[in-house]
Amino acid sequence: MAQRPTITLITDFGLNDHFVGAMKGVILNIAPDAQIVDITHAVQPYDILDGALALAETYNYFPPRTVHLVVVDPGVGTARRPIIASSDRHNFVAPDNGVLSLMYAKEERLHVRHVSSDHYFQQPISNTFHGRDIFAPVAAYLAKGVDHEKFGPEIADYVRFNAPKPKLVDAKTLRGVVLKVDRFGNLITNFTAKDVPALFEGKASELKISVGKREITALYTNYAQGGPGEVFAILGSMGYLEISSNRGAANQLTSAAKGSEVNITLGGALAAGNTSNT
Amino acid sequence: MAQRPTITLITDFGLNDHFVGAMKGVILNIAPDAQIVDITHAVQPYDILDGALALAETYNYFPPRTVHLVVVDPGVGTARRPIIASSDRHNFVAPDNGVLSLMYAKEERLHVRHVSSDHYFQQPISNTFHGRDIFAPVAAYLAKGVDHEKFGPEIADYVRFNAPKPKLVDAKTLRGVVLKVDRFGNLITNFTAKDVPALFEGKASELKISVGKREITALYTNYAQGGPGEVFAILGSMGYLEISSNRGAANQLTSAAKGSEVNITLGGALAAGNTSNT
Amino acid sequence: MAQRPTITLITDFGLNDHFVGAMKGVILNIAPDAQIVDITHAVQPYDILDGALALAETYNYFPPRTVHLVVVDPGVGTARRPIIASSDRHNFVAPDNGVLSLMYAKEERLHVRHVSSDHYFQQPISNTFHGRDIFAPVAAYLAKGVDHEKFGPEIADYVRFNAPKPKLVDAKTLRGVVLKVDRFGNLITNFTAKDVPALFEGKASELKISVGKREITALYTNYAQGGPGEVFAILGSMGYLEISSNRGAANQLTSAAKGSEVNITLGGALAAGNTSNT
Repeated sequence: MAQRPTITLITDFGLNDHFVGAMKGVILNIAPDAQIVDITHAVQPYDILDGALALAETYNYFPPRTVHLVVVDPGVGTARRPIIASSDRHNFVAPDNGVLSLMYAKEERLHVRHVSSDHYFQQPISNTFHGRDIFAPVAAYLAKGVDHEKFGPEIADYVRFNAPKPKLVDAKTLRGVVLKVDRFGNLITNFTAKDVPALFEGKASELKISVGKREITALYTNYAQGGPGEVFAILGSMGYLEISSNRGAANQLTSAAKGSEVNITLGGALAAGNTSNT
Repeated sequence: MAQRPTITLITDFGLNDHFVGAMKGVILNIAPDAQIVDITHAVQPYDILDGALALAETYNYFPPRTVHLVVVDPGVGTARRPIIASSDRHNFVAPDNGVLSLMYAKEERLHVRHVSSDHYFQQPISNTFHGRDIFAPVAAYLAKGVDHEKFGPEIADYVRFNAPKPKLVDAKTLRGVVLKVDRFGNLITNFTAKDVPALFEGKASELKISVGKREITALYTNYAQGGPGEVFAILGSMGYLEISSNRGAANQLTSAAKGSEVNITLGGALAAGNTSNT
Repeated sequence: MAQRPTITLITDFGLNDHFVGAMKGVILNIAPDAQIVDITHAVQPYDILDGALALAETYNYFPPRTVHLVVVDPGVGTARRPIIASSDRHNFVAPDNGVLSLMYAKEERLHVRHVSSDHYFQQPISNTFHGRDIFAPVAAYLAKGVDHEKFGPEIADYVRFNAPKPKLVDAKTLRGVVLKVDRFGNLITNFTAKDVPALFEGKASELKISVGKREITALYTNYAQGGPGEVFAILGSMGYLEISSNRGAANQLTSAAKGSEVNITLGGALAAGNTSNT
């Protein structure tokens, strides 16, 4: 039995409207055997970094040849280009607005094409819903095996941005930010193990993390170590430092939110591999 | 490889309970190869027009022979009939309460049957969850290839209603309504290009649209034309006039909501094809 | 055509994050032909009883050999065991914290294994997301046909609890609780037909149910019997007594919520089969 092609969906369309359903109809009409997998449709409206994070945290778990369709598209109807990006394992279809940036940062060999062959589009093309009229059919034809080259020319000037990195404030202090708040109220910061190696190698002394209205001094390895109402730091499953509480919501306990500043101070010198001066 | 049958789901059951999961189990137990596609489960509770809109905006994108299952069923447990409707391309399973009306309005050749053969139902039949006990198994047997005729007799007196149409208030003014508000705060009105051809042929002069607390004079062709905080009109991807804002929420900016009145005034005479006098 | 294995998902992860998408990627990478079915991801965070209810209301509708994956896991990263439970028809993968208890209560022949063979896990194993790193891959290998015995030894001391049962308060009064509130505001209580046979055999006289700020005296068989704003009792599709309103939200009308006390008084003596004294 030939393997069914997998197409994943990440959008900011929510689940309350007909948007996602219309895209799935277009896909199945072209590629009836496709396996469509919802990753999330709850990307914050128009928030390209939020969409980029959802993709970066998931795409690599999927089987080879998966097509990842990412539609966070505040510029719909303007001249921003539809693109196909291909790594050795996966394909990506998205508007060229940087929403693939965090994936670009993880992949070494990439080919990016400007999708210009409009006979792969759904006609007539609306000016407000390219998810249905451009991105969904392109993903479906890709999944069906249409050659990359047929969609349009390779480009090098695709849009990419860097995720916000922690910055050195002084010899002992790094300043980062809350990238997102998850379902449980965990604050996902932008500190990775590379940014504060001392922290994750167990060499941290006099740790102090300030976020919102709380000061945190505990670094745990699992949630159950936290007492009731206690807020602590933990290396989360995304590879970022998270601020958490055991069976509690850290965002409420700290009054912090997406975008809040996070300051880490250590007793010893900070060996910050990946950071830059302010 | 034979193509797997596709069954789409539209309900007002939400995603927080076991309702949708139970329906999927019943379907797969009967038709294990079915591809189940969620269109939306966020139809407003008991709101038949809202369900009819979700169906009308999506069904036609799906492949031939798709079975569309629509369960918005405030009369569950009463004498209202379960029905199967068939167009040349698709099949529909729903309670006979008008939820298929907007699809009926788009299709020319339709056969509607009263589903009366209760050996296709899940036993015992509850009085409060026919989605699980009647509609899901009927959809699954249909998808599996059971002949329409076996489900019950053809009927002509099925329930249908007309979507609310804009009305002429005076020679220069048409009055319509907000049909729904989408995820981004766009107000979807019930004005189509047919209702106000002058508007969409670029012949509109002195356009004025009043909705909520705002008066709108701009008609754009894509969102990016709008300045910050500006509210404008645009022909949306559903074929209706929408009231929108670029990266903003028009419903908040206008204080309008589902059901709000929308008045359109044009300088020239209104050539209203499809409308009626008040 | 060989039947595709079905894997259902019940979690408290919500749909706003990447959690569910990552689990689906892991599953499809191991078992590309699996049919993944979302039951619900809206289990109340950390609420094991709520997860147990979602499973108990749905699993049995699915085809034989379905793998049900249930991840409500407040003890993630601690010593609580990952388990596989098998009945004659189905397989279940979950943390050993009681989340399978209501299923255990319905099944007679069960085998439960402690999953200890870590070569079926996703490496490296995070301390905070065993849904992705342990439970998803185990479910995928099970669905793919790996023998139960290979995952680890059979155990008898798995965690199970009893669902809260109504209690006799006096000869005429039973006290129960609201187990959950559904999308429509229906209050699902923990009274079954067994607990109050008189009620469901139509022999109830002088019925009085008090919940929240309302006293209810009507027992109906379908919603449409209720007048506007009326609150009544009905035997729901889950087999529990529900407190409902016709096209209204009983939770709002009664000011009751999950956990609220429900007292039933009958004129005659209560023949409470399944209950215990306080």
